Amino acid sequence: MITLASDFGSPYPAAMKGVIRRHTDAELIDVAHDLPRGDPRAAAFWLRFVLPEFPPAVHCAVIDPGVGTDRDALVVRAGSHVLVAPDNGLAMPPARALAREKEQDENIEAFVVDVGEPASETFHGRDVFAPTAARIRTALDDNPAKATPEAVSETLAAMDDLSPATDPVDLVLPDPSVERDDAGDPVAVDGEVLAIDRFGNVVTNVPGELIRGRDWVRINGELTPVAETFGAVDSGDRLVTVGSHGYVECDVNDGRGDGAFDLRPGESVRLVADNVSL
Amino acid sequence: MITLASDFGSPYPAAMKGVIRRHTDAELIDVAHDLPRGDPRAAAFWLRFVLPEFPPAVHCAVIDPGVGTDRDALVVRAGSHVLVAPDNGLAMPPARALAREKEQDENIEAFVVDVGEPASETFHGRDVFAPTAARIRTALDDNPAKATPEAVSETLAAMDDLSPATDPVDLVLPDPSVERDDAGDPVAVDGEVLAIDRFGNVVTNVPGELIRGRDWVRINGELTPVAETFGAVDSGDRLVTVGSHGYVECDVNDGRGDGAFDLRPGESVRLVADNVSL
Amino acid sequence: MITLASDFGSPYPAAMKGVIRRHTDAELIDVAHDLPRGDPRAAAFWLRFVLPEFPPAVHCAVIDPGVGTDRDALVVRAGSHVLVAPDNGLAMPPARALAREKEQDENIEAFVVDVGEPASETFHGRDVFAPTAARIRTALDDNPAKATPEAVSETLAAMDDLSPATDPVDLVLPDPSVERDDAGDPVAVDGEVLAIDRFGNVVTNVPGELIRGRDWVRINGELTPVAETFGAVDSGDRLVTVGSHGYVECDVNDGRGDGAFDLRPGESVRLVADNVSL
Repeated sequence: MITLASDFGSPYPAAMKGVIRRHTDAELIDVAHDLPRGDPRAAAFWLRFVLPEFPPAVHCAVIDPGVGTDRDALVVRAGSHVLVAPDNGLAMPPARALAREKEQDENIEAFVVDVGEPASETFHGRDVFAPTAARIRTALDDNPAKATPEAVSETLAAMDDLSPATDPVDLVLPDPSVERDDAGDPVAVDGEVLAIDRFGNVVTNVPGELIRGRDWVRINGELTPVAETFGAVDSGDRLVTVGSHGYVECDVNDGRGDGAFDLRPGESVRLVADNVSL
Repeated sequence: MITLASDFGSPYPAAMKGVIRRHTDAELIDVAHDLPRGDPRAAAFWLRFVLPEFPPAVHCAVIDPGVGTDRDALVVRAGSHVLVAPDNGLAMPPARALAREKEQDENIEAFVVDVGEPASETFHGRDVFAPTAARIRTALDDNPAKATPEAVSETLAAMDDLSPATDPVDLVLPDPSVERDDAGDPVAVDGEVLAIDRFGNVVTNVPGELIRGRDWVRINGELTPVAETFGAVDSGDRLVTVGSHGYVECDVNDGRGDGAFDLRPGESVRLVADNVSL
Repeated sequence: MITLASDFGSPYPAAMKGVIRRHTDAELIDVAHDLPRGDPRAAAFWLRFVLPEFPPAVHCAVIDPGVGTDRDALVVRAGSHVLVAPDNGLAMPPARALAREKEQDENIEAFVVDVGEPASETFHGRDVFAPTAARIRTALDDNPAKATPEAVSETLAAMDDLSPATDPVDLVLPDPSVERDDAGDPVAVDGEVLAIDRFGNVVTNVPGELIRGRDWVRINGELTPVAETFGAVDSGDRLVTVGSHGYVECDVNDGRGDGAFDLRPGESVRLVADNVSL
């Protein structure tokens, strides 16, 4: 199995699939091709959420604002999974989630791909990442002992065009800091915007359970209703909700949360408990 | 084969596919993941249109505004097909279309899933419906006599976590009422809005043949041109057309029909023949 | 393998897949279902770009503004590939790319499908093109010598419902004309708009290398910055860039290029070199 993720929209991923089919009949599963454009951090967030649901697979993730520069093409083994991605850090948060071990670092290895001269400067998804994923998939499928981290590691080590990465870019999705009262209940959280989705919803790194049961919270000082659904507030009104990924989102019903809350990826979000009804 | 339908957008369905791949290698086919949000009635309409094209399969359909409440998870057998869906009625119209027998009720059985304690309150697509669909698919594939309604019924009856549903929610998509003249030609139709698609097009329950050959109809009193394509009217103008589903739609070229016609799902639409040219 | 392309959006392609699954278990790969609506020329452009990446396959492409008229359903063999499409010319440019031989015309054959009476007037994707693609796929898979142009040709010739097309519609994607200076460097290009994508980006037939290294070009007289990314200009500003397809695009950051440049498919675009900085 090869999973595919990108910010390419359509029909570019089909070109990647065509290239892969020239190498292998392995199953292809789309993760998403509408990830936020040129945003490795958002991709890291979403892949950390989705990829751990899969059994061991090769995951090809191309969110690549540096295409055409000399950034490396990276292969990362995480447990029995393999990620193929540009060396911009996006592979690392999902790799840590996939490694799922206490000694995560020992369960993660990174390789640089010797890409030679790609056919294009602009479409490495087709010309570099897809064929690399296909060759790795084929090598793994040719190895009779393909189910263990050790076997995957050996397979990758034996591939001619891979060499150990000395200093791969890392991208750490930050944890929020939580202030609690004497009873241990959270009273304030300093978090960060991880991603803006294509509807303008602002996804933070604040776990949803920190606002569960509350009617209102202050978001960067502004009192905002907590709601389970967009329809709980009037069209154009702001709300705070918990997305299916489990994190707090700052949204607007029928509008864009990024504009209304004036928030961009990487910016700070302070949530303060407030049960005062307006 | 397992088909998947939801209002999840992206990349949530990939998490469901990952979960299913931990259970079975059965083929996965997406029906749609951009169904109208939280609208079981619209989902019922679209699934009734699409699912009968498939050979016998397991269909996992998650449009679930009640997620996190105590609504049941339902399994419905319809002929040799199986639907897995929240118990909000969405499964019933496609089930009747799939049963395709005169004695439909005898060809439809409903079961409640014993879901235990799901891993999340918000993502039962991943935590309840996908694994249920996967387990049913596996059980059917393990049954050598898997092609008949009887064999499917036996397989489901033998599953530990399914018990007969005593009173599943039904959702009946209404038929329009048609007034005809002495020659039997339709002169007026009282219909209903079944769905608003994401472009704002208003899909009614009025069969397209009732307006075929006409140049104009009155929609709730307003004279509106009948056109085969949006481009037949100016940008921003209203039109009536027949969608590929075969039903009458109330649309606006480069705009939203729901706003222009002031129509919402469940509301009444009266079409009156009018060949007077303006 | 059967690839699928259309302008149907969702969930119509799933109905096509259901129909195909009643005939064959062949793998289904989506090329795109959000191709510009009713625009065979844009479809031809995108399919010419994507399909040559695939190994030999059956490609079912339904962009069909003439659905319900008496336009033919066409089957085109191009090398070992087969295209199934309405006879509006969209199949020809990708066919020529797939044939990939010097004597292309000898490597391309066209057949008309005897479609009988289709089940609907509006959804030939489901009622004509999908079952035709499925039957061809089955016939090819039943032919033990299926990998060569000759074997594909024989298989098609032996099918009862196909007869040679006497005069299939062709659609030629034009090449731009390039004026060069004495050193052979391009100074002006007369091109044409091939497609407008759904973001309003204007895709021309001008190869990207003609603007590589330039900071500014005149587009139909208007001085416009050349940029690698949308973000290189302010929100709402115009830019010229090279898309991943390798052609020059006229775009607006956070806006629509078709409106700003006042360009529609088929219209002329004149690019003149201009290195004067503003």
